[in-house]
Amino acid sequence: MSSGRPPRPLPAVLLFSLVPIAAWFVVRPFIEPIPPLPALYTSFGFSIFALLATLYIIPAVGPAFIKANLKGIDLLKNDKTPIPESQGLVCASIYILLLILFIPFAFSDSISNFANAKKTREGISVTEFPHYQLSVYLSSLLSLLIATMLGFLDDVFDIRWRHKIPIPIIASIPLLMVYYAERGNTHVVVPIPLRFIFGTLLDLGPLYYIYMSLLSTFATNSFNILAGINGAEVSQALIIALSVILNDLLYLPWPLDFRIPLHLLGNRAEVEVGGVWSAGMAYGSQELVERHLFSLYFMLPMVAVCVGFMYHNWYPARAFPGDTLCYVTGMAFAVVGIQAHFSKTLLLFFIPQIFNFLLSCPQLFGLVPCPRHRVPRFDPDTNLLYPSKTLFLKPPSKLTSFVLRTFSALGLTDLTVHPGTGSIFEANNLTILNFFLLRLGPMPEKRLVQTLMCSQRINNIWLLEVAGSVLAFTVRYGLAGLVYDGNRR
Amino acid sequence: MSSGRPPRPLPAVLLFSLVPIAAWFVVRPFIEPIPPLPALYTSFGFSIFALLATLYIIPAVGPAFIKANLKGIDLLKNDKTPIPESQGLVCASIYILLLILFIPFAFSDSISNFANAKKTREGISVTEFPHYQLSVYLSSLLSLLIATMLGFLDDVFDIRWRHKIPIPIIASIPLLMVYYAERGNTHVVVPIPLRFIFGTLLDLGPLYYIYMSLLSTFATNSFNILAGINGAEVSQALIIALSVILNDLLYLPWPLDFRIPLHLLGNRAEVEVGGVWSAGMAYGSQELVERHLFSLYFMLPMVAVCVGFMYHNWYPARAFPGDTLCYVTGMAFAVVGIQAHFSKTLLLFFIPQIFNFLLSCPQLFGLVPCPRHRVPRFDPDTNLLYPSKTLFLKPPSKLTSFVLRTFSALGLTDLTVHPGTGSIFEANNLTILNFFLLRLGPMPEKRLVQTLMCSQRINNIWLLEVAGSVLAFTVRYGLAGLVYDGNRR
Repeated sequence: MSSGRPPRPLPAVLLFSLVPIAAWFVVRPFIEPIPPLPALYTSFGFSIFALLATLYIIPAVGPAFIKANLKGIDLLKNDKTPIPESQGLVCASIYILLLILFIPFAFSDSISNFANAKKTREGISVTEFPHYQLSVYLSSLLSLLIATMLGFLDDVFDIRWRHKIPIPIIASIPLLMVYYAERGNTHVVVPIPLRFIFGTLLDLGPLYYIYMSLLSTFATNSFNILAGINGAEVSQALIIALSVILNDLLYLPWPLDFRIPLHLLGNRAEVEVGGVWSAGMAYGSQELVERHLFSLYFMLPMVAVCVGFMYHNWYPARAFPGDTLCYVTGMAFAVVGIQAHFSKTLLLFFIPQIFNFLLSCPQLFGLVPCPRHRVPRFDPDTNLLYPSKTLFLKPPSKLTSFVLRTFSALGLTDLTVHPGTGSIFEANNLTILNFFLLRLGPMPEKRLVQTLMCSQRINNIWLLEVAGSVLAFTVRYGLAGLVYDGNRR
Repeated sequence: MSSGRPPRPLPAVLLFSLVPIAAWFVVRPFIEPIPPLPALYTSFGFSIFALLATLYIIPAVGPAFIKANLKGIDLLKNDKTPIPESQGLVCASIYILLLILFIPFAFSDSISNFANAKKTREGISVTEFPHYQLSVYLSSLLSLLIATMLGFLDDVFDIRWRHKIPIPIIASIPLLMVYYAERGNTHVVVPIPLRFIFGTLLDLGPLYYIYMSLLSTFATNSFNILAGINGAEVSQALIIALSVILNDLLYLPWPLDFRIPLHLLGNRAEVEVGGVWSAGMAYGSQELVERHLFSLYFMLPMVAVCVGFMYHNWYPARAFPGDTLCYVTGMAFAVVGIQAHFSKTLLLFFIPQIFNFLLSCPQLFGLVPCPRHRVPRFDPDTNLLYPSKTLFLKPPSKLTSFVLRTFSALGLTDLTVHPGTGSIFEANNLTILNFFLLRLGPMPEKRLVQTLMCSQRINNIWLLEVAGSVLAFTVRYGLAGLVYDGNRR
């Protein structure tokens, strides 16, 4: 570990060779032959620029952050140099600025007409993005920007965490308002077994708006409570964004065509993916292609800024994300989940966060004392992390004891019981990080964040990637075929 | 002057009696008989809420601002208590949040259909706001939010003023992008005497975008360089907002009808204002009514937050605006000027700012040394303000001497000349505040801000209000009739 932690060096030659590649992708929609999804090329090119900008700007503005008192001490290191804090602000600014500059490429008549004029291709080609979607896109940007602002205010004013749980609801207001003004659909498709009660479509009405704002709140806070070690926040966002991208890519009109052999699992129908006409899993629905394009436009630059930030946030960290990063990434996932209508699939990617949230509930809701920091304990001699403890100053209530003993029986926490009275006086802090340390033994910080990333990746591989795709599709589409008919909203 | 400056007391009974009035205006569009411009009532009701929120939240969050090191010392007082700084952030947050909550009232189908169903009135009634305008409205909100964010970052990171002049260009990007995507008109109507060169309509093309971003930059920075005494920033914004509102009201379909006796000034045609069919100065153009409604939706809450803030910012100030207020108010004026297409009229309201800018040019562009603060000098013994001086450490160049001697001859500055060499070694700082002190003599701070407000009001009265309306209309419409035909864009 270097003392003072100078910024990580950047391989300038390698990186600047990316500039012409990025520029080529940005102007690709204007080069013959026009590709089927022109704006997607631009989005990819912009993402490369976002990566470069993040890599270079984060270390460049570090001293200004420290000077403005936006700095933190790394709790889990011997070295107590101040590290610039809240640098998620830089990621968020680059991210949102690029999304704004992207508007003409996705929504401009003149650009899309240029592409349409040459149309000779077969199959679904979404060259013209529907114009009414512009206000949806803009309301998403407003929500992201408010989330950034609130995250930064949280960092500056250091709001107590119990007070800040509802803050993301404010950021979701533009989404809700525009959804209402555009007469957004508040119907959900009812699973077949429940249709005799509710009918095929159920109008959730105002409940749908509550659902939308709760999704934003959940996505934001679930990152916020799974934090504390170098790279934790940004790696979660990165892996979820990659998973969303994989999911989106399945819906695009790929020229190749393959079948997922679901009959091996005993399913009657095969799932066919790809082919220009069938447009991937979208099965020829232009609306589904558009929705997943919308999601890609938000997720590609998200991956780019996360990779760029991770380079500096990786153990030992040269930059801290602050709450700003958690707010903006959480909000971005909520936005695509809501606007592209795959919030249920999205929640599957959040299973580690949901696990961490459920585990944390006794501390969040005051059953178990909750210290200011619940990060693992660092032992300077061995350089290892151990589970951190919360201390009961007075004997716990019956309900608390019951919950903790159940958790302990499930191997989720470790209790220290007073030998005389038999009452609990110490428990492991209830977070997924302490859980890993409890199950896998003490480990260095770097290994712990890798374990966290693995668990996220395993969850999402299981759901999505090549090895797990069959299973994931069975869950989402195979089983969905048993409980839903073709009517997907 | 109180030591420690406790917050100004608020007359709670009086203020809370405003709550039912505000609520009535908000729900007015749903009460029979439906008014001709229903959303305008809601906007007015929201503005009352904005006023109350600003009045109460500013003092409530003051201690949190001081704790977060957002504080300043009043330069022109004996009392050196720290005052919360950057509280323009509170104004901006309330302002933008209310504009977001207003979206369903202005753009929702269900609300406007409710009003349309009962339509029995004669004349122009804009119950349904055009839907495509939603993206214009949202892009305006994005620009305002970015301006707020940048203003706050400016306060936190304390960016040097020479570096921050181009910052508002970033905030104008959403406006430009959406204007481009919506294929905004880049034509301007050419004055008749120049038509033999350019034709009737001139397509400025990319220059139009440069013009739009320069307007944002000008409006923002013109407030920023006219600051430094209690109430200066907010009073300018307030008076300009009131003038814009007066100008907008002239275009609405009022039930009354009056004529401006332009024949007294020798004009051939009379100017007729009002009447349900002629819709004020809009002469039956629904588009003009819509544009000025758009402007009112942004200006009414702006007046409300400015009044609320001014109560606490008035001499001796209990709260400072920071750059945040200058950014958000400047951007709001640029937004309405651009989106409602009256940027030339808007510039007339900025004449005192333009004067201050021109006066400041020698210091802004480095001809004359520019100290960190150019505020007037405070004399603790007399409690009066005197013009502040800038010192020449080396003899000025010939160009500088020429400019300063010209300014001095025009009575704009006061020079101190070295008796031996005859070269200038001291000059008054070139701001409108020092100019007032030079022309009118030393005065207390409160009197100086009142003088500034008067100059702004005199400028705008001259342009707009009852006594000056004839003259203003002659300039804008009478003279406009000589150089433009009826074709107004």
